Amino acid sequence: MSILVVGSVAFDSVETPFGEVDEVLGGSGTYFSTSASFFSDVSLVAVVGEDFPQEHVEFLKSRNIDLTGLQVAPGKTFRWKGRYGYDLNEAHTLDTQLNVFESFAPQLPSGFEDAEYVFLANIDPELQLQVLQQVRRPKLVACDTMNFWIEGKREALVKTLRHVDTLLINEGEVRQLADEPNLVKAARSILDLGPKNLVVKRGEYGVIMFTEHSTFAAPAFPLEAVFDPTGAGDTFAGGFMGYLASTQNVSEASVRQAIVFGSVMASFAVEDFSLNRMKTLEYKEIEERFRKVKLLTEFDGLE
Amino acid sequence: MSILVVGSVAFDSVETPFGEVDEVLGGSGTYFSTSASFFSDVSLVAVVGEDFPQEHVEFLKSRNIDLTGLQVAPGKTFRWKGRYGYDLNEAHTLDTQLNVFESFAPQLPSGFEDAEYVFLANIDPELQLQVLQQVRRPKLVACDTMNFWIEGKREALVKTLRHVDTLLINEGEVRQLADEPNLVKAARSILDLGPKNLVVKRGEYGVIMFTEHSTFAAPAFPLEAVFDPTGAGDTFAGGFMGYLASTQNVSEASVRQAIVFGSVMASFAVEDFSLNRMKTLEYKEIEERFRKVKLLTEFDGLE
Repeated sequence: MSILVVGSVAFDSVETPFGEVDEVLGGSGTYFSTSASFFSDVSLVAVVGEDFPQEHVEFLKSRNIDLTGLQVAPGKTFRWKGRYGYDLNEAHTLDTQLNVFESFAPQLPSGFEDAEYVFLANIDPELQLQVLQQVRRPKLVACDTMNFWIEGKREALVKTLRHVDTLLINEGEVRQLADEPNLVKAARSILDLGPKNLVVKRGEYGVIMFTEHSTFAAPAFPLEAVFDPTGAGDTFAGGFMGYLASTQNVSEASVRQAIVFGSVMASFAVEDFSLNRMKTLEYKEIEERFRKVKLLTEFDGLE
Repeated sequence: MSILVVGSVAFDSVETPFGEVDEVLGGSGTYFSTSASFFSDVSLVAVVGEDFPQEHVEFLKSRNIDLTGLQVAPGKTFRWKGRYGYDLNEAHTLDTQLNVFESFAPQLPSGFEDAEYVFLANIDPELQLQVLQQVRRPKLVACDTMNFWIEGKREALVKTLRHVDTLLINEGEVRQLADEPNLVKAARSILDLGPKNLVVKRGEYGVIMFTEHSTFAAPAFPLEAVFDPTGAGDTFAGGFMGYLASTQNVSEASVRQAIVFGSVMASFAVEDFSLNRMKTLEYKEIEERFRKVKLLTEFDGLE
């Protein structure tokens, strides 16, 4: 197997200045695996309730996502409700109902322990660690987290980070985790915790990656219409991991390309609500936008 | 003559989380011309009061800046006082004393009408227009402006923009001028007002330039210590115009390089208060940082 992702599958209700949707398909595991599926095989470990409709299962299957690890538990599926203002950079959570997610204990089905690329989506760092204890020798472990865990479970998070190759978090979380306002200094102190790569998500400003010896900055693809930023970060991670798994190459050159593919995937995701844009997206559109980002960033060096 | 800049020369009092300075050399014309002087000949048209010390005149002369157009008027030099918080992105103006700047009417000395590269720093758009009426056939006219003029003198500003090739403003000002929250749409509507290039300054996120047919994004050079962002925008503009004037080439390839040189100059300016960093800066350091930005942005294209 290629990529393993452990995360959430949810119903999202979202309001943006451009419209609103009620109980549509969402969740970090969903966004990630759908995005990764454009590049690689992917297996999703998550939990849903008995109310999870067959239609959504069919969509995920249509993307060739292995759902052996998708448990159906008694009760209701995780629900999240949020609102975005005009700046679209920050979600205001209106309601969270964990439901079946509350007692989620990821148990990898047989065969999953050989996963080569592992993505720990934004869940309790103790659960992230439990997943890592079940895999044998992944080539690359990447993880996400959020302010809630940085505040509430710092110790468990720091323990998890020792086993993580690539941490993908947003700019505010970098500063919070390092307790340092300067991004460069903050990045350096996070690299000391274990990760070899720190990929900092900056929304419409793109991504900046720090390693011990280098820095890489990529702009976001400039969009005329951003409809709904929900899932952009997980879609980014899916493109990032998907590309790396497809090339079986984790050199810095490959990681830089993976960041651009991740950005491109995120730029599509925000063009519509839920995973709607992913339903019509074709691989050639992804490559086309990758080439546009290349043109967007090129300038001549000095002689 | 090569570059002509019309702007302010001021005494700045600045507080940042890292220290404070009182009545140090500042002003848009000062920052611009000092930065441009690393690349090209530059002539400064501005006004100071009788209190302007010889020491500052000597500094500007040491940078080979032509001061024929620096008027000394009866009264006091323009003073600005501001404070920055930890994010360093926004200045909070505490006090502005226009003094001699209040009755400034830029009068170009003889010979200045042949200027090839003209930069209209952030002054009243009516004065910007007066300057343009005094120059013959510049190769490139660039200008800056701010929320104050966008609100208060929109009509005059729009009139000025018809004669401007490159507008350099910050992101918030783009949205305000176009009255449109989406940056790409806003940029398009500003290009319709006259400028061929819109260079959008995004502080620590770098710069994005829009032309009718292309977009270019360049990151800011990541710094471990930003001391004082005052003058960063004018220093950027100085590097940008200075490089273009030095190459006598305003092709898009050259403009892209000029943006990177501008960013590099700004990254030095913010490392210390006032123009202190400029006093020790050497050209080889500029090229060295340019090369670092090149490495920072490179990734392989698709086959």
